[in-house]
Amino acid sequence: MKIAVMGTGAVGRTLAGGLAELGHEVTVGTRNPETTAARTGEGSFTEWAEANPAVGLASFADAAAGAELVLNATSGAISIDALGQAGAPNLAGKVLLDVSNPLDFSQGMPPALAIVNTDSLGERIQRAFPDARVVKSLNTMNAEIMTDPRRLADGDHSVFVSGDDADAKQTVRGLLEQMGHTDVIDLGGIETARGAEMILPLWLRLYGSLGHLEFNFKIVR
Amino acid sequence: MKIAVMGTGAVGRTLAGGLAELGHEVTVGTRNPETTAARTGEGSFTEWAEANPAVGLASFADAAAGAELVLNATSGAISIDALGQAGAPNLAGKVLLDVSNPLDFSQGMPPALAIVNTDSLGERIQRAFPDARVVKSLNTMNAEIMTDPRRLADGDHSVFVSGDDADAKQTVRGLLEQMGHTDVIDLGGIETARGAEMILPLWLRLYGSLGHLEFNFKIVR
Repeated sequence: MKIAVMGTGAVGRTLAGGLAELGHEVTVGTRNPETTAARTGEGSFTEWAEANPAVGLASFADAAAGAELVLNATSGAISIDALGQAGAPNLAGKVLLDVSNPLDFSQGMPPALAIVNTDSLGERIQRAFPDARVVKSLNTMNAEIMTDPRRLADGDHSVFVSGDDADAKQTVRGLLEQMGHTDVIDLGGIETARGAEMILPLWLRLYGSLGHLEFNFKIVR
Repeated sequence: MKIAVMGTGAVGRTLAGGLAELGHEVTVGTRNPETTAARTGEGSFTEWAEANPAVGLASFADAAAGAELVLNATSGAISIDALGQAGAPNLAGKVLLDVSNPLDFSQGMPPALAIVNTDSLGERIQRAFPDARVVKSLNTMNAEIMTDPRRLADGDHSVFVSGDDADAKQTVRGLLEQMGHTDVIDLGGIETARGAEMILPLWLRLYGSLGHLEFNFKIVR
């Protein structure tokens, strides 16, 4: 599948690399590809791209235009703006897999949520781009576990999907299962993204308490 | 241990019954014991009390005064008021195990949270009763699983504790382990109750999606 991964940060890189390894044709979308490419040295996207030659780099708009599925891995605070740059016509009709979290670092650490309780970033993206088929998923775990769930307890943990479009959720479920996720729980419509996003404050405190990122939620039932 | 369970609802009854079965001396606290006792018939506390003769009934204040540990199982909306009726002097120095959730039903179903994100009910109770040693726990699962975790997957799931007093958390941990909880995760100070309370929106949507209450979170790590 042709996939545009929006965002050049750690989450975007990990997902882009993982999806390319699974045989998908992946392009990373960024605000300004020239600026991104011009940054070199340790930790740069350029360094990462050299180690991942199968993954392309393009503007948000070009990446989205050429994709069948768009994955939002930008930081929550800029997601609506980044997707706006991708352009509503380039998102229309497509599955928009949103893995972002609306973290608010303005009050110190651990971050609070900028959108919470009676709304969610997933819903806000769906409202901003009504012709996209938004599915919230994967935002409840570390990026390494998103793409390679088997690294933790042989994959014996859960991932959630929220979205109003049943076919879009089915497409995402297929992608998740291809990655190795075995327990995909459909929470319901995009409104249920509130639940998935509001687990982040617990995730952040578990990270603080456990002292590492190698954990995930399993819904025992 | 002498335990006062504040609240005559389903959660209070289940916890009171379970703790009495474990050999604790349990009194249920209510606003007006005469009014509570006067209500009879199916589903009443009186009916339940007849089946659980070891459990006493008293006013919030009398129950708290005679207890070593006070357990708040009132609904979140009235918890501060109920504990105020118990009386700050009757809570001073005692472990106050808070299992309540600040659910807000005013916006329809599923409920939102009345306190969220930059505060929590656990913290609010600690601030209102600074001499009590508040520990937030057990609020992330159904009451039946709180008291009898082994009924689900032989107890292979997690429970969280948050609180500023290490000894109080140790007392609660002992009680939880006596109930059958095997994975007690200390999240940190009472501030971390935000994480435990904010999992409720996901819990509510899982309830909607799974269609039953027999589930719990396990932190796989």
